[in-house]
Amino acid sequence: MSTALVIGAGPGLSASLARALKQRGHSIVLASRDTSSLSDLAQEIGATLIDCNARNPGDMERLFTMLDEQQDDLDVAIYNPSARNQGPIATLDPVDVENTLMISAYGAFLMAHHAAKRMLPRNQGAMFFTGATAGVKGFANSAPFAMGKFALRGLCQSLARELHPKGIHIGHVVIDGIIGSPANPESASGDEDFDNMLNPDAIARTYMHLLDQHRSAWSWEIEIRPWVESF
Amino acid sequence: MSTALVIGAGPGLSASLARALKQRGHSIVLASRDTSSLSDLAQEIGATLIDCNARNPGDMERLFTMLDEQQDDLDVAIYNPSARNQGPIATLDPVDVENTLMISAYGAFLMAHHAAKRMLPRNQGAMFFTGATAGVKGFANSAPFAMGKFALRGLCQSLARELHPKGIHIGHVVIDGIIGSPANPESASGDEDFDNMLNPDAIARTYMHLLDQHRSAWSWEIEIRPWVESF
Amino acid sequence: MSTALVIGAGPGLSASLARALKQRGHSIVLASRDTSSLSDLAQEIGATLIDCNARNPGDMERLFTMLDEQQDDLDVAIYNPSARNQGPIATLDPVDVENTLMISAYGAFLMAHHAAKRMLPRNQGAMFFTGATAGVKGFANSAPFAMGKFALRGLCQSLARELHPKGIHIGHVVIDGIIGSPANPESASGDEDFDNMLNPDAIARTYMHLLDQHRSAWSWEIEIRPWVESF
Amino acid sequence: MSTALVIGAGPGLSASLARALKQRGHSIVLASRDTSSLSDLAQEIGATLIDCNARNPGDMERLFTMLDEQQDDLDVAIYNPSARNQGPIATLDPVDVENTLMISAYGAFLMAHHAAKRMLPRNQGAMFFTGATAGVKGFANSAPFAMGKFALRGLCQSLARELHPKGIHIGHVVIDGIIGSPANPESASGDEDFDNMLNPDAIARTYMHLLDQHRSAWSWEIEIRPWVESF
Repeated sequence: MSTALVIGAGPGLSASLARALKQRGHSIVLASRDTSSLSDLAQEIGATLIDCNARNPGDMERLFTMLDEQQDDLDVAIYNPSARNQGPIATLDPVDVENTLMISAYGAFLMAHHAAKRMLPRNQGAMFFTGATAGVKGFANSAPFAMGKFALRGLCQSLARELHPKGIHIGHVVIDGIIGSPANPESASGDEDFDNMLNPDAIARTYMHLLDQHRSAWSWEIEIRPWVESF
Repeated sequence: MSTALVIGAGPGLSASLARALKQRGHSIVLASRDTSSLSDLAQEIGATLIDCNARNPGDMERLFTMLDEQQDDLDVAIYNPSARNQGPIATLDPVDVENTLMISAYGAFLMAHHAAKRMLPRNQGAMFFTGATAGVKGFANSAPFAMGKFALRGLCQSLARELHPKGIHIGHVVIDGIIGSPANPESASGDEDFDNMLNPDAIARTYMHLLDQHRSAWSWEIEIRPWVESF
Repeated sequence: MSTALVIGAGPGLSASLARALKQRGHSIVLASRDTSSLSDLAQEIGATLIDCNARNPGDMERLFTMLDEQQDDLDVAIYNPSARNQGPIATLDPVDVENTLMISAYGAFLMAHHAAKRMLPRNQGAMFFTGATAGVKGFANSAPFAMGKFALRGLCQSLARELHPKGIHIGHVVIDGIIGSPANPESASGDEDFDNMLNPDAIARTYMHLLDQHRSAWSWEIEIRPWVESF
Repeated sequence: MSTALVIGAGPGLSASLARALKQRGHSIVLASRDTSSLSDLAQEIGATLIDCNARNPGDMERLFTMLDEQQDDLDVAIYNPSARNQGPIATLDPVDVENTLMISAYGAFLMAHHAAKRMLPRNQGAMFFTGATAGVKGFANSAPFAMGKFALRGLCQSLARELHPKGIHIGHVVIDGIIGSPANPESASGDEDFDNMLNPDAIARTYMHLLDQHRSAWSWEIEIRPWVESF
């Protein structure tokens, strides 16, 4: 069997990713700081839930040990978590800024570190990371998010250069715009007519395309935004 | 009926694109400076062949007038032509440099100009442009190709900002690496085991993914390269 | 003696550059499509005026032949010309677009080509090119300017990679904002209190800094904009 | 009086910066994790030495409190510290990676946070940050350094957008290449003939140029590398 791990699994994008991976035959593991809201999804797709704070080295070590115990190959690992704290530089709380950087970037490193150990022996696998426009453009009054998402992009670019030649596909998906969510019923996954916000199923299809790419023609980065979004 | 236009149609990538578009039900028009080598492909997929020098405004005007006469909607237009002349800046021939710029960038403008006129009334359609690494990195002793491919990228970015909100999808595909060709039998389309060079069918699948993207989650640019290519 | 060539010399930036170069002891040659407006400046700094359409290979060949006859070393060559035509892609005139591309980029190639021939034998010299934000961001309804300025940037990056190791310094200055001009008296060069538009003397000081850089620490690109300019 | 703060002051670049700032009449404060090696420099230029671990919020708070007690205006603040740990992603030590990110990026945030509080009331001042090529290109087997330097760049870009319109100049200097050091006598500051490595005095002159820029023509980023460095 083949396992797909989705970290930062909440409603919205992560649910769409998990369903799409399930459809391709992967067994799904959802890791999140608070898995209580995920029980319906887990039941729907037969996913394993693991509580895990992605910025915590001990939690991430434990997560991957639990994956090992399932004795499946880890073929896909996706990192979604990010934090954001906004405001003028002089008023930001240093504790919050540290947290934003750790969740948005350091946790991604931890996943890459542990996933690489599992994927390298087979020279196979894919790791995808959910980025944001803030990773290519640092907006005013949003320094911590810019720091976190720029760092994530630097990590991914470095990983692509190191791991592509070893058969492991790295993807950095720059999400530009608001993702529709169940809280916004019109925008919820499934309603293709609502297209002014990013449809999470549509986003997931681009992740799946990266997964399907023949390795003679791999992409390490792709930007997606609604047709009406200015950039 | 719906027409897909492929400019710069030769063996390799253009053939893979034309076949993939045919499979989706488009009627295909192949335009090229020399269509004589395309008769087999044209017969195979029932394509119309039109002779056309893409840098020539009169030729391009005539090409689109002929498309109009087919009375089909133009839904897809793809621009592949490029020229390249390399060497130290002091030794380049100004005539060749002008030609490289005109074929690689000005012809792409001409296609965008005429295709936009056809697509805007229906707020629908897609235009894709084949770029190269030279469009994001200007290599030594290759100034003309850098000029042409940078200009193409600037065109595409401007078009995405103008035309996405009007329902027309722009795609700039940065090809990094050598595309396998029939002259290199091992690399020819179809042999998925040969993966050190870009497989033209694999490239075409990424173009088709762009074409399939829901407009709530459009990409305007994607880079593709073989897993073993250093960058 | 040492010659500094400024192409695209008009009031504003070019005058500030010419004065700054004169102050450093260079003899100045101003080349422009219409030198009639430059007679006052030429008299002030003892400059030679040469009529020249920068996009025309014959004109540029003649310009450099005239420089050779002065028997001075060509140490600095600066390229300022650009054209701009704006509007929706479907309404642009192909003739104007070709002109924008030729003036903004092809003329710069011609200068680089001829200047390199003069500078390479001494492994010494500097070529600077005036870029614009349009060279790093392609705005909607401004495709031709984006094409021209992206191409210029690709040229400069390629030249830096080729010519820096041969002792010739390349500089691409990205001007972001409106340059103050004599037509706008408050903004004219010399009035340092007017700082919401780019002061041409201030811009020229950054070009002179590039000229002064020790070759152990060369820059090939720098962006400048008014403090109040959003980007 | 006006104070210039240099964090990460060691031999090499920081010494050149400190001397150049002293020459312009600033009183100098050098902050470093270990100031013991700086006593000669401090005596030479009459600088104050403060022990400070830049990634530590308490240390940075204390540093700026000590600056306040000097009752001078803080006009310049420069951040140099960085850490680097290299190796394949699977073999990196998570503790080291956290440290690299904190020193290279989080400490820079802390400086910006505290310096902004001092500079905003006067709408005046400059903050410069020493970046690296790793901040624009993520190399293989160097993920932590890429993360730290990308994050630093994101911080600076965000700060420029926020603080330029408030009169505070942000500079991100991308150093590409090896900086000559006293350990390498030939490359030491002062020997202008040695130009294959970055001369620290030459680098410092570019920082001083940024400091001198008229605010109608500010740069927020500049890349510098030796003429012979490939990129």
